[in-house]
Amino acid sequence: MTWTQQDLEDLAKSLEKSDERTFADALTPLEPGDAAEVVRTLPRPIRHVALLSLPAETAAEVLEQLPDDLAAAAVMQMDPGRAAAVVRRMKSDEEADLLQDMTPPCAEAILAKLSPDEAAAARSLIGYADDTAGGLMQTEFISVTEAMTAGDVARQLRKRATEYADYPTSYVYIVDGDGKLRGVASMREILLCDADTPVAEVASTELVTARTNLPGLELLKLFRRFRQVPVVDEADRLLGVVTHDDALRFAEDEADEEMLRLAGIAGGDEFRDMSLGQRSSRRLSWLSVNVLLNVAAASVIALYQETLQQVIALAVFLPIISDMSGCSGNQAVAVSIRELSLDRIKPKHFLWVLRKELGVGFVNGLALGILVGLAAWIWKSNATLGVLVGGALWINTLVAVSIGGLVPLLLRRFGKDPAIASSPILTTLTDMCGFFVVLGAASQCIELLR
Amino acid sequence: MTWTQQDLEDLAKSLEKSDERTFADALTPLEPGDAAEVVRTLPRPIRHVALLSLPAETAAEVLEQLPDDLAAAAVMQMDPGRAAAVVRRMKSDEEADLLQDMTPPCAEAILAKLSPDEAAAARSLIGYADDTAGGLMQTEFISVTEAMTAGDVARQLRKRATEYADYPTSYVYIVDGDGKLRGVASMREILLCDADTPVAEVASTELVTARTNLPGLELLKLFRRFRQVPVVDEADRLLGVVTHDDALRFAEDEADEEMLRLAGIAGGDEFRDMSLGQRSSRRLSWLSVNVLLNVAAASVIALYQETLQQVIALAVFLPIISDMSGCSGNQAVAVSIRELSLDRIKPKHFLWVLRKELGVGFVNGLALGILVGLAAWIWKSNATLGVLVGGALWINTLVAVSIGGLVPLLLRRFGKDPAIASSPILTTLTDMCGFFVVLGAASQCIELLR
Repeated sequence: MTWTQQDLEDLAKSLEKSDERTFADALTPLEPGDAAEVVRTLPRPIRHVALLSLPAETAAEVLEQLPDDLAAAAVMQMDPGRAAAVVRRMKSDEEADLLQDMTPPCAEAILAKLSPDEAAAARSLIGYADDTAGGLMQTEFISVTEAMTAGDVARQLRKRATEYADYPTSYVYIVDGDGKLRGVASMREILLCDADTPVAEVASTELVTARTNLPGLELLKLFRRFRQVPVVDEADRLLGVVTHDDALRFAEDEADEEMLRLAGIAGGDEFRDMSLGQRSSRRLSWLSVNVLLNVAAASVIALYQETLQQVIALAVFLPIISDMSGCSGNQAVAVSIRELSLDRIKPKHFLWVLRKELGVGFVNGLALGILVGLAAWIWKSNATLGVLVGGALWINTLVAVSIGGLVPLLLRRFGKDPAIASSPILTTLTDMCGFFVVLGAASQCIELLR
Repeated sequence: MTWTQQDLEDLAKSLEKSDERTFADALTPLEPGDAAEVVRTLPRPIRHVALLSLPAETAAEVLEQLPDDLAAAAVMQMDPGRAAAVVRRMKSDEEADLLQDMTPPCAEAILAKLSPDEAAAARSLIGYADDTAGGLMQTEFISVTEAMTAGDVARQLRKRATEYADYPTSYVYIVDGDGKLRGVASMREILLCDADTPVAEVASTELVTARTNLPGLELLKLFRRFRQVPVVDEADRLLGVVTHDDALRFAEDEADEEMLRLAGIAGGDEFRDMSLGQRSSRRLSWLSVNVLLNVAAASVIALYQETLQQVIALAVFLPIISDMSGCSGNQAVAVSIRELSLDRIKPKHFLWVLRKELGVGFVNGLALGILVGLAAWIWKSNATLGVLVGGALWINTLVAVSIGGLVPLLLRRFGKDPAIASSPILTTLTDMCGFFVVLGAASQCIELLR
């Protein structure tokens, strides 16, 4: 039968007060993906009990389907021995991610319960940064030696069918005696050719490979052209493969984290079930920089207190100009960040971006300036006020879209992440400029404004 | 040989002034993915010449690798007859996307050059919305009938090898006489079992299928559990499949468009090579709403002009409080949008989100309030001013994170997209509240502030 989301939630609800036995009865008949949905919906303190009620093999599959932080939290609640029995059955890259997400003492306790070989393999994968080819690859792949025939490969597949069951199976890799990658062939090509054809003949030798330290975003670009990417060491020895599945997950995580960084949340993930300290400090690390930038921008107003005192109506328009310019600028930031990430522009396309943004800024600034200027004129029956406020908004929109379009290019040029820093730099500069234009111009024609 | 990004760019540069013959010589030896990189880097007016220099089969593959809007622009520059020869060789879903991205007269001109069958097939795919299972599926898949044996399937695969070359090949679908989907088996399972085993015996009959109108985001959730999803009509007849590849593309596009909507760019895509009118109007449609909201918020300041006149220093702090509350609130918006999209929260978790946000707001608001309050106190040597400004920022941070956390839930509850509307609603409300708290409190203790 097929389970709907609602069925799975109802099941989780009914399990909230149950023992290991009931868990086992309810979860065992489910597909791993469905069981993961149930475990996810359960209250945090009993998730590990639900996992332990399953056979280790199934629990491992369920863990692979859970979000990383949630899986790590559940495993940390298990006894290390039982945790090790589950963890060693996971796919190598999932296992490494899970151990990386735990507190080091918990991870060590579990590693100590693995066999020395297993522990060494896990440690070597943990060694690669999360967002590199090494961190994304899995060490389960099908490799055969150059000397084998298509028939040999088919026999190997039949013999090791259980072991291979969860391997990515689209491709077979051909390696030489030293483990060096020599070629790749699709599984279908091999299975459908004559049994005595040497695999080396079927294989394609034009290989695109990734080194373990290749950044994830570069790796992602290869998936525009390939379905699976082999990862090799310095000596071209095959270490693992990154599958489409891994790439999809990585792309989703990256997009999410970029959104959080754009909104000013540093250090990657935030979920509301993390501790208050973690959540506060990650948000605050950026807010505290921003408050300083804000004080700097507002100090422009402090310079013109006298002007403001004489035309208090200007105080109404300062936040409007600040906020509207910020919005226009952030639109340009978003377009630049997206075009950079899609390789549609490079830092060297500075002048082209500037020209394009000035065009939009001219039109939109004019439209907004007329709207706000008219409002000012009508409100205070003062045409000069209208022209001043409207003109300032127009000019500041031009400034804002230029800065917004270009700051991400400059940050990328100097190797910084555009997502986290673009917006605060933009708002500070446009605020300062906007306040300066309005108040500076007002101080020049103060008589006309009163 | 393997081409680097730089090689491909250099090649594009050298081709900028060449004729069809030179294009053919340079591009034909490349892999389609590499050729696509070269075409992408070429100036817009000669991209279609480069494509036409290739054999139609290759040109179709190259088009599939180009971004949709770029591919459509290039094909619209071709003669409809030649365009049709290329387009009919594309994968069905890519072909439909391409035709959808063209102006209707261009698309019609090309459809008119296809055979009636081909045109009808393309039209039926164009009928499905871009972001549904129907719009994402391709109609190339391998299906066999219930009565066949594993050996029959292998023979069919060998016989139709050319046709199947670009099909997704992990799974074989088993259909009955009416085209109804009956089961699915992995290609490897079928090729490795005895030749006289009926496929129906190997196949799994526990099927998860998608209807053509299933929204893309729902479909994406299925890819957490499955590698390929068959799409069926009302009568369970198999119409197409959505592959991991399609899912990855859709996820990337969705994330990009969500980022643009969060930054206030309506109507999906914006690239800087679109026309000024398109870019201006998409950005302006949201800016013009925002300017009205801003005027509404600023009108609170207008109510308190007298208070402001007496303590002009307050004008310096109004933009700080407005901007900082906006930042804190937008962090909460981003976390809620992400948790909603990952199914970690639902609209009904209103109180839980509120509790979590109040915790963070209390801590961060206090920290920011102390910072800004101290600055005010020291600057004007007026403790009351410091307490007033700092206190207002604290209160307004609590308000901002609550609104920011909850507005996305409310919008989702009422079936609206949280990405486009959350931020403007948030900023308007927090500005109004912030201005009101500062100026209202100041008017009550005006003597202490002067």
